Parts: sequence; structure tokens; C-alpha cells
Amino acid sequence: MRNLLSIEDLSRQDIERILARASSFAQVSGREIKKVPTLRGRTVINLFYESSTRTSSSFELAAKRLSADLVSIKAQGSSVDKGESLRDTVQTLSAYDPAAIVIRSPYAGAAALVASWTTASVINAGDGKHEHPTQALLDLYTLRARRGDLEGLRVWIVGDVLHSRVARSNILAFTRMGCAVTVCGPPTLIPRDIATLGCEVRFSLDGIEEADVVYALRMQRERMTGSYVPSLREYAARFQIDGRRLAPHQLLMHPGPVNRGVELAAEVIDSPQALIVRQVESGVVVRMAVLYELLAGGLSPLPASRGIRTEPQPA
Amino acid sequence: MRNLLSIEDLSRQDIERILARASSFAQVSGREIKKVPTLRGRTVINLFYESSTRTSSSFELAAKRLSADLVSIKAQGSSVDKGESLRDTVQTLSAYDPAAIVIRSPYAGAAALVASWTTASVINAGDGKHEHPTQALLDLYTLRARRGDLEGLRVWIVGDVLHSRVARSNILAFTRMGCAVTVCGPPTLIPRDIATLGCEVRFSLDGIEEADVVYALRMQRERMTGSYVPSLREYAARFQIDGRRLAPHQLLMHPGPVNRGVELAAEVIDSPQALIVRQVESGVVVRMAVLYELLAGGLSPLPASRGIRTEPQPA
Amino acid sequence: MRNLLSIEDLSRQDIERILARASSFAQVSGREIKKVPTLRGRTVINLFYESSTRTSSSFELAAKRLSADLVSIKAQGSSVDKGESLRDTVQTLSAYDPAAIVIRSPYAGAAALVASWTTASVINAGDGKHEHPTQALLDLYTLRARRGDLEGLRVWIVGDVLHSRVARSNILAFTRMGCAVTVCGPPTLIPRDIATLGCEVRFSLDGIEEADVVYALRMQRERMTGSYVPSLREYAARFQIDGRRLAPHQLLMHPGPVNRGVELAAEVIDSPQALIVRQVESGVVVRMAVLYELLAGGLSPLPASRGIRTEPQPA
Repeated sequence: MRNLLSIEDLSRQDIERILARASSFAQVSGREIKKVPTLRGRTVINLFYESSTRTSSSFELAAKRLSADLVSIKAQGSSVDKGESLRDTVQTLSAYDPAAIVIRSPYAGAAALVASWTTASVINAGDGKHEHPTQALLDLYTLRARRGDLEGLRVWIVGDVLHSRVARSNILAFTRMGCAVTVCGPPTLIPRDIATLGCEVRFSLDGIEEADVVYALRMQRERMTGSYVPSLREYAARFQIDGRRLAPHQLLMHPGPVNRGVELAAEVIDSPQALIVRQVESGVVVRMAVLYELLAGGLSPLPASRGIRTEPQPA
Repeated sequence: MRNLLSIEDLSRQDIERILARASSFAQVSGREIKKVPTLRGRTVINLFYESSTRTSSSFELAAKRLSADLVSIKAQGSSVDKGESLRDTVQTLSAYDPAAIVIRSPYAGAAALVASWTTASVINAGDGKHEHPTQALLDLYTLRARRGDLEGLRVWIVGDVLHSRVARSNILAFTRMGCAVTVCGPPTLIPRDIATLGCEVRFSLDGIEEADVVYALRMQRERMTGSYVPSLREYAARFQIDGRRLAPHQLLMHPGPVNRGVELAAEVIDSPQALIVRQVESGVVVRMAVLYELLAGGLSPLPASRGIRTEPQPA
Repeated sequence: MRNLLSIEDLSRQDIERILARASSFAQVSGREIKKVPTLRGRTVINLFYESSTRTSSSFELAAKRLSADLVSIKAQGSSVDKGESLRDTVQTLSAYDPAAIVIRSPYAGAAALVASWTTASVINAGDGKHEHPTQALLDLYTLRARRGDLEGLRVWIVGDVLHSRVARSNILAFTRMGCAVTVCGPPTLIPRDIATLGCEVRFSLDGIEEADVVYALRMQRERMTGSYVPSLREYAARFQIDGRRLAPHQLLMHPGPVNRGVELAAEVIDSPQALIVRQVESGVVVRMAVLYELLAGGLSPLPASRGIRTEPQPA
């Protein structure tokens, strides 16, 4: 495994290996000194063409806790202002011989292009409406930490599926792990061919009581240029997850940041069923695991049959 | 002590302990290798919702010289652009289990709110017009390095007291240390109830020759939306500290950045009486001391009766 | 040597020493752990008043691979927004006692001014149309790695010489090393007195077949406020380096980022004659060498007669 571009490329075994590695790093994160020397002297570049707090800081921390040197390039205030093309930027950065480039871009397919231009390992941190694979992995990790085996769990993904790379990656990831996935939203926000990914489609919340997990998507206000919904108010009336719609046995997930009062009501965000903060927590250890697998995986292979046994090097 | 939110919360003894610790770190800063391993593997987050060079870089250096991993979040180019609320941002960042969050915000009370949402130690790096406690601490440190005991010193704080968190924190800090504080400025820039903080109030520079220390405030041009002063020119004529108004026995302080020719004339900025550069220097060691007290204080208590004796761990 | 402000200040011996040091660091960059502890605990400040990806990230990596603590200050989102003058900013930053300040500014002479205000070592990372000495050094390094001795090489520098600090530094650097330099461009983009730097002047590409090295300059679109060229199309027709104009024995250099289809045609950018990616690669090791010479040069002098022998300290 050289790159992490999409969940589509991962076998169930690949996913298991990453989740097991993440578990081992969770022990490191529980210590006061949250650091291992694994990637000391190696360079990780964060190349972000979209604004982001949680994904970029999560990768930054993951790299630093592995002792890598991190260089962060944001679109604003860089040569990107001078009209340098993505390709030239990647060639420039590749000349520094980084171990990995973490790329976020508004364009679907950007991460794969980057991977074709560099010998560094490339991690897709979100490319347009295409995929956001580390989000899906951290969601799996979070859910498994709470529920154990995922086989047979029923997951409803609710909201703006059309504009959501998180939805795409998560449909693929949950089905790969044996979950039954249903997507739900207004017809204008559900892509026509989405069922080909192996999920069911619903246009209302009727029946959501069957779900074990409700995964609400962020309403991407800034991407909603068309008239996809009559109004946020009407959207909320029909699709907002609130205290009435979330049963006590159901778990609630959301990739964040949440629009309070739009896709989620305040009372469910802070309920014990919500895993939202756990998802963020998982982000660091899962991204440590991904960096480890891509950059140091050969050094200390995880015994496939034994799960989370492998110890990271002591700090 | 878990947080540093305001000078109001600090006893004189607390302040003495921080200043003593800062003195011990001044030795580290004097070395070629300006680093101790105290906070190795721990995470400090700089969360700045206002632009800042000196405060943010000073905290950044303080954290790095203590070997912490620093993650810097600026309002621009982050999820803040997507309308994420402060609370959600803090919950996200808290999920990384940082040792400390350093927060600057345009809103008074923001730091206390942050502290109510996180188990990390919170340091107020300026919250609206409320407080800027590390500024006051570094001012005390700087003045004491020059003058020794502060008891009985007469300090005049001159300028835009109304909009100044520095003024508020410094009135509290100087009086706590036994100084006699006078605030001075045009009536439109002096809050009505300011005397309740324990200072005298003057509306002209008459009598400033009695001051041991003249502390000029920055004229916050960008915050002056009302018509507080007829013009900067007239303001300068009445309240600018220049060579005629500053006697040789008086010391001059300013929190920076200075508006040359507004609150201070060029000739006094670079005079030997000016402690302005010393104040900036003190910023790093005082912030190292604050981080140390909050995050590692229990590890190696400073003997209260012995002052600056405690050695930081060798680099 | 305390500062690196311009190539003009460097003797051929100075340049040789830096290039030799860079060669020794190239070994470090070839390792998996690309790091030496040379500048551990010392602070390097990147102070950039112009946007930049490659120069700022290259200095950042150079500093980090020497184990220095790097603080990066960009004009956007800093006190510069509040109208703080360059001098005040430098005085502030100097109070942190940095080992070096790397300054990029739109104003010619800014680096020399900074050096007059601070005791830190100052490195000019580009000051207006004046100089960009580390670019010239990395170009020498790159060319020598490919061609060996530079003595007698014929170098044509083509394009917008008028607005180019790279042109100025490179004319000086190439001539210092014994190359014969010709500058070439439309009369409106060639400064009148440029020949006083020791180069020849041509106003067309006629005769370029004599060149061993073609060094194309970036067409600084954002600086072209006047009517220097009739159109980019006509400029390209007369001065673009393309497959017809570049002979197989000639090498091609460019400081980047390239305007594809303006100063260079796509087919030459990716040709084996192009050293453009090598130039970027060289940036890190040459900047490591410059930092080393300025900050640690006295510690481990390079034997002048032995060239690239000296080993950096092991990681």
C-alpha cells in the first residue's frame, strides 16, 4: 500500500489492519507523552486547497506524534496565488522528497492525479465530491470501539448525499465491513445512481427506527448554489435528527462541523448516543495508523491473525 | 491553578510564583540551546480569532522551547470560515487531548467559556475588552527586572483605556503588587466605573511628572468606530508622550505594536527609558512560566520562600 | 559571515564554501532520516511579506532538518495588518533572540535594513527587484552537480530582466564563478545599465545556440503594470523557449513557478535538459548550508582545500 486515495481501493483486510494499528496508537494517545519516534526525520506535507480545521490539524498532530516534520501549505498566501498549477506545485514539493503528501482539493480526482506525479505516498484528505477515506476509517474505528463487530449493523446516512464525499466513502466503508447501508434525503440531494454502491435509498425518515446508527451529513451550505431544498427550515422539518427521531438504542454520528439546528437539533448533539466527539478523537489515531501503514508498514508488519497486538516503538 | 483567565483570579503569591519561574527560564533563554524537554510529547493549541504577531509567536516560541508540539489555528482559512461555532471548535480541538489551549478572541468572556468546555488548561491571550493577563504578567516581570520591588511605585496608564484589555489587566496587576495606579485619557476613552478597580482617574497629563512609570496604551484605530476623539492629531497634541513630557527618571512602557507619532513620539520609543523591547523579550519567558505552572507545576514545585531558585530540567 | 544579503557581498571562495557544505548536506537529504541536530534549540524566523510556496517551505524544511525551531510570520493575519512598521516588527522578533531571520519583502533593500536593526543573522529571501541570493546559490549548485566546473560556461538569461531579482543575483553569481553571461529580452524589459554587472545584452534570441545554459525567467504577470510587452502572445512568439529553440546540448533552468506556455513551452519543461526540478531539490540543501555557515560555521570549519569532505554531525 503506497497511497490512500479511496475506500474503493481497500480490501476488508486492509481496513482491519489500519483499525488494529489505530488501536495500538490509542495507547500512545492515552499517555502524557503522546509521541513515538517512528517517523523522525521524515517529512509530511499538508497541501490544503480548501479551508479546514479538523482534518488539517488532525493530520498535523498525527504527523507530529509520529515525530515527523510537518510542512503545511495552504492555498491562501502561497504560490497558488501566482497561478501555479497543481502539477507544478506537486513537482516542487516532491523535490523535497517528502515521505507523504496529504492533499485536500475541491476537485474530484485531484488526489489520484497528485499520486501520478509524485513518488511520495499520497493521502486523500477530501477531493471534491469524490472521497474522504480517512473520515470513513475513523468512523469505522469509532463505531467499532463502541459496538464491537460491525457485521450486520444497519446504518442510515441522512442528508445532502449529493455533495458529500463523506457519504461516498462511508457507504463504501460500511458495506465493506458488512453493514447494511441506507441513504436518505430529499430526491434533489440523492444522486441517481447511488444504489450501485450497494445501499438502499429512502426519500423520507420513515422507517429510520430500524437503524442501529444514524449518520447525519453536514448540510454544505457553501456548496448549495442551486435550489436543492425549498428552505433550510423546510429541510430541517423533514430531515433534521432531533430527540423525537432518535431512539435510545440508536447511535448518532456526524463528520462535523455540525450546523446546529439544521441537520441536528441541539438536544441530540450532546446526548450520550452521539459519537461526534469520539469521531474527532479517533481522527488522530486513525491518521497515525494510515501514515504508519504507508510509510513504515514494512518495518513492523502487524500479524494479521492477531489484531491489535503490535506495539509502537517506545517514546 | 488549571487556567489563566484573568489577573483578577491571581493572588499576589500566584503572581510571585510565576515571575520567579520566569526568571528561571530567563537562564534557558540566555543559552544557545534555548530548550528544555519539560513538555515533550504534549500538545499546545494556539486558537487565534484575531490577527496577532507578537502574542501568537511568543506563545509559539514558549511552547516550542518547552518541547511541546504546537498546533496553530487561525480564524482565517479554517472551519471558522464555515460558520463553526466557538463551542464546536473547542470540542473538536479538545478531542485531541491538548495540554493547553491558548485563546484570543474579540469577545469578552470567550476564554472563560472555552475553559467551561474543555479539560485542557486554558490561557486567555486577550478576550475583547476584558483581559490580557499574560501581557500584565510580562509587564510586571519587565518592570521588576529593572526596578526591583514594585511596592509603592506610581504607574500612569495613558490613552484609550476604554477599549483596552491591557489596561484592565494591568490596573489589576499593578495594584495587586502594591503600585499606585492612575489612568489618564480623554473622558470619552475612560470607562465610568474604572476607579472601582482601585485606580485614580485623570483627564489630562497634568501631574504626570509624579509618575515613576508611564504606561502608554496603543490607540486602537481599528476599534474606534465612534467619534471618541476629534482627531488623531488633537489626541496626540493632548496625550502623546514625547520628549518634553517624559522626565529622565521616568520609565516608559507600551504593549506594542506602537503607532509612532500617535501615542508615542519617535524620540521616546528608542530612548533608554523605554522598556518596550524588554517587554517583548519577557513575553517568551513569562509565557513559558505560565505554561509550566499550569501544565507541569505539580511536578516540581517552586519553593515559595526562596524565589527564583528552581532549575528547569537540563536540555 | 553574519548575513546573506546579496551575491555582491560574496567572494568566489565564500560561494565555494557554501556549495561544498551543501554537498555534504545532500548526503543527509538522501537518507531516510533527513535530520541533523546542528541547530537544536535555536530559533529561525521566516518573515514573509510576499506570498511564496517554494522559498518559504524550502527554508522551513532546511531549518527543521537542522533541528531548529521555526516560527513563520506571514504578512496576512499578523500585526502587519495593524500597520506595524517593518522596523517595529523586526525589533519585536529580535527580542526573541532568534539565531536567524529570513526575510522576503517587496522592497529592494529591505533585507539590509533588517540586518541593521537586529543582531540575528539575516538572510535575504528576495527583496523587491534587488536580489535573491539563495536562488542564485542553488542554481550554481544545481548546474555544478550536472556540469562540474562552471568556468567558461556560456549562460543566457532570457526574459523579464527588469523586474527580476533572480536575474540580478544570477548575473553576479554566474560571472563570479567564471561564466560568460548574456541577458536577453525585449528592450522594455532590460534595464539600461545592466551591462555594468558584467554581462552582454541581446534583444532577440538570435545567437542563443551558442549558450551552454538557457536560464528562462518567470514572466512576472502580477508586476507588469506598465505596457512592457504588446501582449503575452507576442512575447511568447519572440522569447518563449520551446523545442525548436533549445538544442540537445543545452541545459534549461528556471527559478519557478513556470508560466507554462509563456516563457517556456510544455515540451521543454519536462525534457531531460531541464534542471527545474533539480533546482528545487537543491533549494533545501543550499539553504541548510547557508544557515549552517551563518549560524554554526565557526563550530566546524570546512577545510577550504578539500571541498565537500566535512561531515555534518550524525543524526
